[in-house]
Amino acid sequence: MRRTTAFWGTRKQAPSDEQARNAQLLIRAGYIHKEMAGVYAYLPLGLKVLENIKNIVREEMNAVGGQELMMTTLQPKDIWERTDRWDDAKVDNWFKTKLKSGTELGVGLTHEEPIVDALSEYINSYKDLPILVYQIQSKFRNELRAKSGLLRGREFVMKDMYSFARTQAEHDELYEKLAAAYLRIYERLGLGEQTYRTYADGGYFTERFSDEFQTVSDVGEDTIYVNEAKKIAINAEIYSDETLAKLGLNRDELVEKRGVEVGNIFPLETKYTEALGVRYTDEHGVDQPIIMGCYGIGVSRLVGMIAEHFSDQHGLVWPEEVAPARVYIAQLGDDEATRQAATKLYDDLEIKGISVIYDDRPDVRTGEKLADADLLGMPHRVVVSTRNLAQNKLEYKRRTETESALLTFDELLAKLA
Amino acid sequence: MRRTTAFWGTRKQAPSDEQARNAQLLIRAGYIHKEMAGVYAYLPLGLKVLENIKNIVREEMNAVGGQELMMTTLQPKDIWERTDRWDDAKVDNWFKTKLKSGTELGVGLTHEEPIVDALSEYINSYKDLPILVYQIQSKFRNELRAKSGLLRGREFVMKDMYSFARTQAEHDELYEKLAAAYLRIYERLGLGEQTYRTYADGGYFTERFSDEFQTVSDVGEDTIYVNEAKKIAINAEIYSDETLAKLGLNRDELVEKRGVEVGNIFPLETKYTEALGVRYTDEHGVDQPIIMGCYGIGVSRLVGMIAEHFSDQHGLVWPEEVAPARVYIAQLGDDEATRQAATKLYDDLEIKGISVIYDDRPDVRTGEKLADADLLGMPHRVVVSTRNLAQNKLEYKRRTETESALLTFDELLAKLA
Repeated sequence: MRRTTAFWGTRKQAPSDEQARNAQLLIRAGYIHKEMAGVYAYLPLGLKVLENIKNIVREEMNAVGGQELMMTTLQPKDIWERTDRWDDAKVDNWFKTKLKSGTELGVGLTHEEPIVDALSEYINSYKDLPILVYQIQSKFRNELRAKSGLLRGREFVMKDMYSFARTQAEHDELYEKLAAAYLRIYERLGLGEQTYRTYADGGYFTERFSDEFQTVSDVGEDTIYVNEAKKIAINAEIYSDETLAKLGLNRDELVEKRGVEVGNIFPLETKYTEALGVRYTDEHGVDQPIIMGCYGIGVSRLVGMIAEHFSDQHGLVWPEEVAPARVYIAQLGDDEATRQAATKLYDDLEIKGISVIYDDRPDVRTGEKLADADLLGMPHRVVVSTRNLAQNKLEYKRRTETESALLTFDELLAKLA
Repeated sequence: MRRTTAFWGTRKQAPSDEQARNAQLLIRAGYIHKEMAGVYAYLPLGLKVLENIKNIVREEMNAVGGQELMMTTLQPKDIWERTDRWDDAKVDNWFKTKLKSGTELGVGLTHEEPIVDALSEYINSYKDLPILVYQIQSKFRNELRAKSGLLRGREFVMKDMYSFARTQAEHDELYEKLAAAYLRIYERLGLGEQTYRTYADGGYFTERFSDEFQTVSDVGEDTIYVNEAKKIAINAEIYSDETLAKLGLNRDELVEKRGVEVGNIFPLETKYTEALGVRYTDEHGVDQPIIMGCYGIGVSRLVGMIAEHFSDQHGLVWPEEVAPARVYIAQLGDDEATRQAATKLYDDLEIKGISVIYDDRPDVRTGEKLADADLLGMPHRVVVSTRNLAQNKLEYKRRTETESALLTFDELLAKLA
């Protein structure tokens, strides 16, 4: 991608009403556009980051046998009434709308009910189970306040998976498989070290705990107690002597931290399947209930979380698997030889499948180009300058390092391999 | 994909309230689920078809310099008031909702206003233009009636592109480039022959025509007059002596047909840029208006159109580039040797990058498996049967043909190459 043809650019200032550091950075770097509080559009680089995260999540969901589908945003009221989740007194963050006929519709905030309803067509016998289905799509929640940028959106992108099992043992196996898949996802996103599987409240209809995945961060909205040795944590909301005893945890091993919830997995038991009357017939012809689980990851929240976590005073510092491009080429000097050399480098890297943002802008000062390279945060920066070309060298620097090195093209390729 | 692990299945009947042939077929084949009139969820195979079409559209939009972004579904009222498109008396198919504070929001039906508003941040000088941006996402339109399945949805997937040009000549060049890209898209989708660039009304604020792309079909909602020799058409809504004279067309060369509008491109002149106060400074420092165009393709409508067009009394008949998989393997006979041979074929094809739906269901009759192969509509069917294996042969048939042939594995590969 060439900067001269890209429509977006960097900005000195984020809008004054934007308080969250993740959104400030992403707006200044031209990744996102603020439509209103909690509602952000994705410009090309922001969309690439979002797609990179989606693809990691998709690969891990497919690897455990997940089947991808796409449910609808518009929701009929009746299936939500059957589980008592339509009334605003029960679920307080619906966006609702109306058909011309006056019929009320919901704007999708989650999809347990429609998924169970859709799958009821296909579930009859024990042979039809277990099932793992998921989707990655925009969700809508009418949050009273939305001041955390991409960390808490009114419109946001989420991966939600649902499991359907024949027995508690089968459910538990799927649940643990998903927990492991989640940890692989955070690992690949560069958040593995800071992210803890965290015991949390299971909700009012189950004795079981749910599991959150909490990334330790100063901007976290949650308080968690972390056992670093065992790599587990417990949410403050269930931090009591009784729970600690149940979990075999000790207060002295636990350290209080702030956490951002980057995923949660939930035992739903038979709540939704029974409310919607979906059961299966077992090997002996006996009608049986279906045990369900749900597994969420806030994909756009992760964009914000990573922006927040991997950044410094100069800007964004993307991990390799998430970055919208791997290399930022800054062409310094606009003589013909320098332009040709930079263009050739750009073409050569792209042909090798190494994605590049090429700052080919002719009328921009050196300081501004280097500042943009830092703000935009690609993992590798290459400066092509008239001076270094005289020695047949390129100036190379990792975004995470301060020292640069003069390299030949082959040495550069070795660094990027 | 193995049928034994796939959660979806085929059905004898579509729901009785479904009148559209495209939706009936797609529901019976397990591609989509009807949530309510005009609102359909995509099950795994339907999602694959949708993604295949998206990718073709995306490739052609990128090839002409389109930059992909993702605007938001939730829309603030104020930017739409500035173009007088908020009032329900002016735009009669909004879905609207409300924040907790009572502030009204729109649920995105199109995106001219927010796109112009977002880009205003980045457009100052002539150097920033021209710009082509696009997105592929769900749109929401509060249609009074929605009886045509995927051909007219209340919730549907659309590609919308917007162009911003400095001069009328620059706009015209972009506009024609996009018209050519559209024709390439229909060609790749297998609809090239039946699809006509069609003169249509330009709207109340321009003297110019817009262009529709109409696929000739009995289920079309539009009447068009087609000149087959010149490969152009004119929409009945502007079919008058005056227009014909202007276009140099003759009534005797034109044949009346029904058409499905599978795309439209529109000269917006300066309507939205001026209403939202977005201008640029030219080479001479003079403030100038920006000429805009918009370019829509109904991606989910195309799923319906292709299902409708490429189908027979037995089911769907997908074109190669659109099909959710290329091959349907029907294993007939459940002895160990047949199962091993079919499994090996499945693995071998998948390794070669040839996507397969493998009907490995042990307890399903031959007739049902072959009926499913026809209903699901993969371009190539391979029967692995105990009888033919004795001769080391596979039975191969194209979905579009009635005669099958006995082939060796190598001969099969040659057919699929």
